[in-house]
Amino acid sequence: MAARTVKLAVIPGDGIGPEVVAEGLKVLATVAPAHDLALDTTEYELGAKRWHATGETLPDSVEQELREHQAIFLGAVGDPTVPSGVLERGLLLRLRFSFSHYVNLRPVRLYPGVHTPLADVGPEDVDMLVVREGTEGPYAGMGGVLRKGTPGEIATQDSVNTRFGVERVVRYAFEKAAARPRRRLTLVHKDNVLTFAGELWQRVVREVGAEYPQVSVDYLHVDAATMFFVTQPARFDVVVTDNLFGDIITDLGAAVAGGIGLAASGNINPEGDFPSMFEPVHGSAPDIAGQGKADPTATILSAAIMLDHLGYADAARRIERAVGDDLQARAKEGLVRSTAQIGDDIVRRVAEQG
Amino acid sequence: MAARTVKLAVIPGDGIGPEVVAEGLKVLATVAPAHDLALDTTEYELGAKRWHATGETLPDSVEQELREHQAIFLGAVGDPTVPSGVLERGLLLRLRFSFSHYVNLRPVRLYPGVHTPLADVGPEDVDMLVVREGTEGPYAGMGGVLRKGTPGEIATQDSVNTRFGVERVVRYAFEKAAARPRRRLTLVHKDNVLTFAGELWQRVVREVGAEYPQVSVDYLHVDAATMFFVTQPARFDVVVTDNLFGDIITDLGAAVAGGIGLAASGNINPEGDFPSMFEPVHGSAPDIAGQGKADPTATILSAAIMLDHLGYADAARRIERAVGDDLQARAKEGLVRSTAQIGDDIVRRVAEQG
Ligand SMILES: CC(C)[C@H](C(=O)O)[C@@H](O)C(=O)O
Ligand SMILES: CC(C)[C@H](C(=O)O)[C@@H](O)C(=O)O
Repeated sequence: MAARTVKLAVIPGDGIGPEVVAEGLKVLATVAPAHDLALDTTEYELGAKRWHATGETLPDSVEQELREHQAIFLGAVGDPTVPSGVLERGLLLRLRFSFSHYVNLRPVRLYPGVHTPLADVGPEDVDMLVVREGTEGPYAGMGGVLRKGTPGEIATQDSVNTRFGVERVVRYAFEKAAARPRRRLTLVHKDNVLTFAGELWQRVVREVGAEYPQVSVDYLHVDAATMFFVTQPARFDVVVTDNLFGDIITDLGAAVAGGIGLAASGNINPEGDFPSMFEPVHGSAPDIAGQGKADPTATILSAAIMLDHLGYADAARRIERAVGDDLQARAKEGLVRSTAQIGDDIVRRVAEQG
Repeated sequence: MAARTVKLAVIPGDGIGPEVVAEGLKVLATVAPAHDLALDTTEYELGAKRWHATGETLPDSVEQELREHQAIFLGAVGDPTVPSGVLERGLLLRLRFSFSHYVNLRPVRLYPGVHTPLADVGPEDVDMLVVREGTEGPYAGMGGVLRKGTPGEIATQDSVNTRFGVERVVRYAFEKAAARPRRRLTLVHKDNVLTFAGELWQRVVREVGAEYPQVSVDYLHVDAATMFFVTQPARFDVVVTDNLFGDIITDLGAAVAGGIGLAASGNINPEGDFPSMFEPVHGSAPDIAGQGKADPTATILSAAIMLDHLGYADAARRIERAVGDDLQARAKEGLVRSTAQIGDDIVRRVAEQG
């Protein structure tokens, strides 16, 4: 059977981004051929260096080129030398918004052998899928500043929630919940305070939920949800939430599941109208960049989410198994390895499973 | 010396509110006379029952009466029979906003003997003071709904941040930080995404901070802050943050410090232009109401914050010591007591210290 070719845009980005992306690509290069997948990769230099050199975050022409790919694989962007928000809004969020990544998919799963900061919690307690809305909410960037620098200054930030935007992500979350053994969906919001947006989210979950009678639905205020993340993570299966609450609870989820070095994500446009983008949840960690200290596992697991999205579920499971084995080996052997050594070990495990 | 009389408005509220408030009042009644304090209490029936009976959440005349008091002691409001937001916005938030409670003071402290869900964390690691802004941000209630119920529906929620509102709470936080041994202040926000509000908060912290060179200042994105709450709580001393982020991280903080049954708060108007209001962080917990199962400790600790605010620091410390002793006794003796028994035991310990 002839291999299918997938055009993959790679954005290594800043800080530890290039290091972890290199390991992700090694793993992909190992697993792809065995599954009749050929990856045609093009690298794009975007991030702090380009901004310093040219003032550009994402030129329209580059956005246009990226659009011609089937997926984007991203390391991390951001650097202390760039004002906060410039690369986040101008590059990362621009991609999520332009490419309609309305599903920000973030599994929160505690692998056996991984250390969690929680005392009485094990792998069987932490296995959730957070479906974070990715294209609206307070991330829309709406708002402004009036009378800046004067005592009468006002700064506003507006959360935008549309029926269209909420419904599509809620529907996706119900689909995911219906396909999982526990079939449970928790809406996380703050509807007793954010009454306009909260009522819309609640109503959409009720209405779409009527089409999924097999899924049991639950609601938690975001503040209570953070408590349950640390006291009863087992109560969560699929979680659906807005862009900002999703940002917050998935970092907390990452901490619970052993740290940001393991947290993977997909910025997904389910219809495939635009390329989806896969990236670790962590940032560019400039303090450890270039030292081989970064853990590439989150990036490698993001590659697995990408393979799932592209229709290569078997290849994705293979990476996850290799990562799972590697994480258990770390626990047993107390391994201290460089970024590349971790990547090599996972590559070896992927190959052995062949 | 003649006792000073303080007019205290009591709002027991809904669910477990009346049960826990009763214990708080018992403790106050024990400690007050020994510190030459006479409490002249008036009870106000506000909450779900009144709303069902009359449709009122907070009649103007009652707000006017409350204003004549020096402090308000509140249990909890909210009930599943009342639509979400009605009592929160119409009563609780209305009081916070009308009475300019711009400081929402929430200590996060792990008492010796108390079980935390975190594995490697002890009382020496968890001792922070969260200064949550209480009168603006996304809690302002601004926003609206357009084309409700149609496919084109839009719901917005606007976060309002004023120089005036941010500066006064930041200044309060610096004062608190300067008076604590570690003299450390962490601003928690999300300035890389909420760029308008974030820049204002950052600038105000920088400017006010110049007046407090002895305080070391730190910044964390809210998502990262939730991680550090569970992995390195010791890095926090005083935290200053907006209304919504403060809501979220203080519930998480409560979980880390042994649960919502222990988390106290003060809604403070530092200038005393309006009565400040003291309440446990927990809600009305209708599922356990009327069964004597609620832990009154958070309410009792809120009474201590109230005494501090009223100028009775010694009395406040006495309550905190009694609570601390009681919490250690619980741990040792595995006590299972009713709401009233816990209250009685703390009353006894307060009296013994006399
Ligand atoms: C870098 C930042 C804009 C981003 C976000 O807030 O979404 C990050 O925290 C994430 O979670 O991917
Ligand atoms: C009940 C609710 C309005 C309130 C809030 O969000 O402030 C509560 O969660 C709290 O933290 O006091």
